[in-house]
Amino acid sequence: MLTLDKVYHAAFVLRDVIRETDLIPAPKINPDAQVYLKTENLQVTGSFKVRGAYYKISMLSPEEKEKGVIACSAGNHAQGVALAAQKSHIPATICIPDGAPISKVENTKSYGARVELVKGVYDDAYTRACQLQKETGLTFIHPFNDPDVIAGQGTIGLELLNQLPDMDAVIVPVGGGGLISGVAFAIKSLNPKCKVYGVQAAGAPSMQHALQDGKVEELERVSTFADGIAVKCPGDLTYDIVSKYVDEVVTVSDDEIATAVLTLIEQQKLIAEGAGAVSVAAAMFNKVDVKGKKVVCLVSGGNIDVTILSRVINRGLLKAGRLCDMTIELADKPGQLKEIAGIVADLGGNVIHVRHDHGGEETDINGCYLSLQMETRNHAHVEEIRRAISERGYTIIDTARVM
Amino acid sequence: MLTLDKVYHAAFVLRDVIRETDLIPAPKINPDAQVYLKTENLQVTGSFKVRGAYYKISMLSPEEKEKGVIACSAGNHAQGVALAAQKSHIPATICIPDGAPISKVENTKSYGARVELVKGVYDDAYTRACQLQKETGLTFIHPFNDPDVIAGQGTIGLELLNQLPDMDAVIVPVGGGGLISGVAFAIKSLNPKCKVYGVQAAGAPSMQHALQDGKVEELERVSTFADGIAVKCPGDLTYDIVSKYVDEVVTVSDDEIATAVLTLIEQQKLIAEGAGAVSVAAAMFNKVDVKGKKVVCLVSGGNIDVTILSRVINRGLLKAGRLCDMTIELADKPGQLKEIAGIVADLGGNVIHVRHDHGGEETDINGCYLSLQMETRNHAHVEEIRRAISERGYTIIDTARVM
Repeated sequence: MLTLDKVYHAAFVLRDVIRETDLIPAPKINPDAQVYLKTENLQVTGSFKVRGAYYKISMLSPEEKEKGVIACSAGNHAQGVALAAQKSHIPATICIPDGAPISKVENTKSYGARVELVKGVYDDAYTRACQLQKETGLTFIHPFNDPDVIAGQGTIGLELLNQLPDMDAVIVPVGGGGLISGVAFAIKSLNPKCKVYGVQAAGAPSMQHALQDGKVEELERVSTFADGIAVKCPGDLTYDIVSKYVDEVVTVSDDEIATAVLTLIEQQKLIAEGAGAVSVAAAMFNKVDVKGKKVVCLVSGGNIDVTILSRVINRGLLKAGRLCDMTIELADKPGQLKEIAGIVADLGGNVIHVRHDHGGEETDINGCYLSLQMETRNHAHVEEIRRAISERGYTIIDTARVM
Repeated sequence: MLTLDKVYHAAFVLRDVIRETDLIPAPKINPDAQVYLKTENLQVTGSFKVRGAYYKISMLSPEEKEKGVIACSAGNHAQGVALAAQKSHIPATICIPDGAPISKVENTKSYGARVELVKGVYDDAYTRACQLQKETGLTFIHPFNDPDVIAGQGTIGLELLNQLPDMDAVIVPVGGGGLISGVAFAIKSLNPKCKVYGVQAAGAPSMQHALQDGKVEELERVSTFADGIAVKCPGDLTYDIVSKYVDEVVTVSDDEIATAVLTLIEQQKLIAEGAGAVSVAAAMFNKVDVKGKKVVCLVSGGNIDVTILSRVINRGLLKAGRLCDMTIELADKPGQLKEIAGIVADLGGNVIHVRHDHGGEETDINGCYLSLQMETRNHAHVEEIRRAISERGYTIIDTARVM
């Protein structure tokens, strides 16, 4: 059972293993609020997961410890369990679906865990882990639906109450619900006036649906680049705690998440993964009431694959009108490239990619396409350039704003 | 004159303006050393510059304050002076060369400074600032060659002595030398056993040359993407202090800097600009003696343009063999694309871009090129794929490792 005692005990057990992560003011996230970031992306292993995993392991019996633990994850939980086991000097086996990014597999191995790559997706890896668990008697470490795991995550709530005693609200990412269960329980137990909001990706709103329907149900499919919270089904335990202690669960779109990731990079010099940035997206886009409030956005993790990161940066720039792809139809005669380059330069656009192709079957035999990628100031600036080019008689096929 | 008194006084004056930035363990930077990061990229304005600028302004007379200040910069100093002036409630004018990234101009304006965009490069903006200074009687805030500015930067040294009293060495980025002058002076005055190393970009080694030649001389040109330390000429004051208090100044290549930026993103979830990451590059690539030592890498700033960041990420991945561009000559007949895709897939490479072009005049009329971009594990993995493709009789035109 989850008790405040347990959360305090977890904080004591964790004191030499985890970092008390910094709380950093972020004045530009939302000009109408005082926003702070709880930087669990700077936690060891790059996410909060090590808190719950280590506390859970610390509570095992000597016999259980000797046998070791098993977990299943393609991401943060894998690394959290692996490091927690290493620090506890016990063996760990982690089942990872074989499509997971190479970097996450390597990181999990670097903490000394035995990694078993399982052909297929998460569900296949989970099935394999359960089978292995039965065969070997290892203890299964659940990523969220466990009171000890939840108590470990709850230590973040205790830290926040110390770091910013007069906060009005905390905004927390929600996947399976382990993190928000711990944080909400700790904060509401000690300071019931502080609001606790949950945020899910619009493409994976399992907890929001459960609250609306009054019961836990599995989503048929989830779709978001915030893989850390792409969970089809919350736990029954986390659902109960969230129902009782969380004020509201809202959703943000993938475009809003990408914008938040980019904003954290540019304004705060922090890398957040999609799941870690949903709290910031909620504050930026006023999904919950932050006006005039002191608000903590919990940035839960930073383990984002760098190739995804590149795409997110591009998407964020396009969405903000700071990058613009434009394809223009040209008659294939001299001087047109020069004229268009001149228009763009005069208006202060900065061309970074040019492609000039003869068209396919849908253009005139003499026609061709000019594709430009430009750095621009904002959407109004894109419009201005677009209009200037149209006014000289060119046809713009396409102005992609979001990839 | 620079005194320890002055540095302590600066720390007192700065206490409500700046953040005492976190010192974060970074165990994966160099396995043979205990590395810590002093995260001045998480300082307000995204760099340490606000420390010196604010302390300098605090020392002005009431008359000087009333008139206001002027500075010239395309980067961190602009934002540092702008925020320092805003916090001191005095007007600031910043001359910025008109080629500077839009984001830096916007950020400087956001702190309430009057920005004058000057046609040309840094030197042109500097000339204009000097002219304006003479006309208006504003106080010029030098970016490094000023004892008050240096004392402000020195407060980082005091913080480090508190945060990690038994550190063996501190590694500090060097451009004009203001930061390292303050840090070395503070640390050597209080703990002379602690080593202080400076790091410059190999393409801008002005302080290293000055130390070798025993006098300050201007470099003819500088070339590095670490624009924050691309300084042609150190100051006479900073040169004197560095000669006296710094143990050694070394250099790192742009590829090493890119690798360090990427490592900070992946392992530490931190954005550093090129100049901010040279200290980390020096520790990673054993440019100074870190073996068995407790070493602090000062990460001086994080203001990197996101388009540059995208390129740096790519360059770092290519250099580590984790991304690979390969161009293969094909005879233009069916089945070849399929065969090559099969070889790559079997060996675990992940294709992310394909381009298939008929060649230019240098290929057979029937020939064409297949360009692949793949995610790979490391250089050995790239070699393995390369060999397998060659063994099937294909000619690989080019395997670009670094863009």
